Amino acid sequence: MAITLYELAGKDGRRFSPHCWRVRLALAHKMLDAETVPVRFTDKDSIAFSGQTLVPVLRDGDTVVSDSWSIAEYLEDAYPERPSLFGGEAGQTLTRFVNMWTGGGLQLALFPCLAKDIHEHCDPADRDYFRHTREPRLGKTLEQATAERDRHAEHLERMLLPLRVLLRAQPFVAGEEPLYADHIVFGAFQWARCVSDFRFLNDQDSIRIWRDRMGALFGGLADREPHYET
Amino acid sequence: MAITLYELAGKDGRRFSPHCWRVRLALAHKMLDAETVPVRFTDKDSIAFSGQTLVPVLRDGDTVVSDSWSIAEYLEDAYPERPSLFGGEAGQTLTRFVNMWTGGGLQLALFPCLAKDIHEHCDPADRDYFRHTREPRLGKTLEQATAERDRHAEHLERMLLPLRVLLRAQPFVAGEEPLYADHIVFGAFQWARCVSDFRFLNDQDSIRIWRDRMGALFGGLADREPHYET
Repeated sequence: MAITLYELAGKDGRRFSPHCWRVRLALAHKMLDAETVPVRFTDKDSIAFSGQTLVPVLRDGDTVVSDSWSIAEYLEDAYPERPSLFGGEAGQTLTRFVNMWTGGGLQLALFPCLAKDIHEHCDPADRDYFRHTREPRLGKTLEQATAERDRHAEHLERMLLPLRVLLRAQPFVAGEEPLYADHIVFGAFQWARCVSDFRFLNDQDSIRIWRDRMGALFGGLADREPHYET
Repeated sequence: MAITLYELAGKDGRRFSPHCWRVRLALAHKMLDAETVPVRFTDKDSIAFSGQTLVPVLRDGDTVVSDSWSIAEYLEDAYPERPSLFGGEAGQTLTRFVNMWTGGGLQLALFPCLAKDIHEHCDPADRDYFRHTREPRLGKTLEQATAERDRHAEHLERMLLPLRVLLRAQPFVAGEEPLYADHIVFGAFQWARCVSDFRFLNDQDSIRIWRDRMGALFGGLADREPHYET
């Protein structure tokens, strides 16, 4: 039975959601084909069947799963004979740490740097919604956040330091080969380069080199998405 | 053959080094007894045999290992029949992420909040050394760092958020039971409470509740060390 992934789409269909990228890469890691259905921020009728309003949503036959972490756990359980996303039980719980750090640390630090650019890449019908929901979270306008980017970039630098040191010592977050932990962290960098020309990694940065490695995985799945050269 | 752990000791022999605590807990986790030898910042003759000047150093028969991460890997390899520190290969590489985050994120954020209090708890003979090596790292005096603690605490809060969210969902960093990942992170909190009354976790904080759980492990090994009630 076919798998369908409902994922956020912006202007001209561009996919930039970091959480949806985690799932795209998890599906490729499991060597599973999926049909993808674009969903806009303000047009969630197509995922009403999931009982909630957030993408990503995965439908696999009669099974419906939402939330990127739950989807990854579902795929690991449902397709145990395929390449593992976690590398075992301890790997799975420790990947939760990476998940929390990415969502509650890295992406929070990136958000004010990207907010205005995300707005530009929203479908025109979604822009007011995005502004009105995100500005209260930022505590300022999208334009103010961009104007203060240098200050936000300083905080981002402090967040990136442990990742940079780790990726000097090993090629992937998960060691010699990429696991779901890599897909989680990479989702944040794919989000950034899909919406913004904001350059915060120099060419020699171990994170930049890893990002190139990740973009090329699965036949260049992430590299093929339109993005800025940063 | 007996195991010896050379670890940092401060005023009145108080042990506060976060890296030494990682090893103490790793030894207890492996149910290994060790003799401990106190080492001061400025009196490293006793570890000259290790070919370098940093504690912790572990001597196990004819084997000498320095650096907390290398010691943990050594213990895992040398005592495979004892309780695992990592829970397997993927667990081990993902624990490196926790290791880097703790050293390059959490401890860096804590350091300016604690620096003056660490100085107070150094052996009197070590205080000048500590001041002269640490103030350049801080870019300010120990007293200035303390005066700016509120601003540093704000950054610390942002660092702690992912850990807080994780520990609401599971009792230990590594899941249902503690692994070396927990010992790494706990080392930073033990460091803080062994030198400072600086209170940055409220009673209901999931991190605080986990810290209590960790302090009580191995018959209260960490709780027994003199510390402030924070």
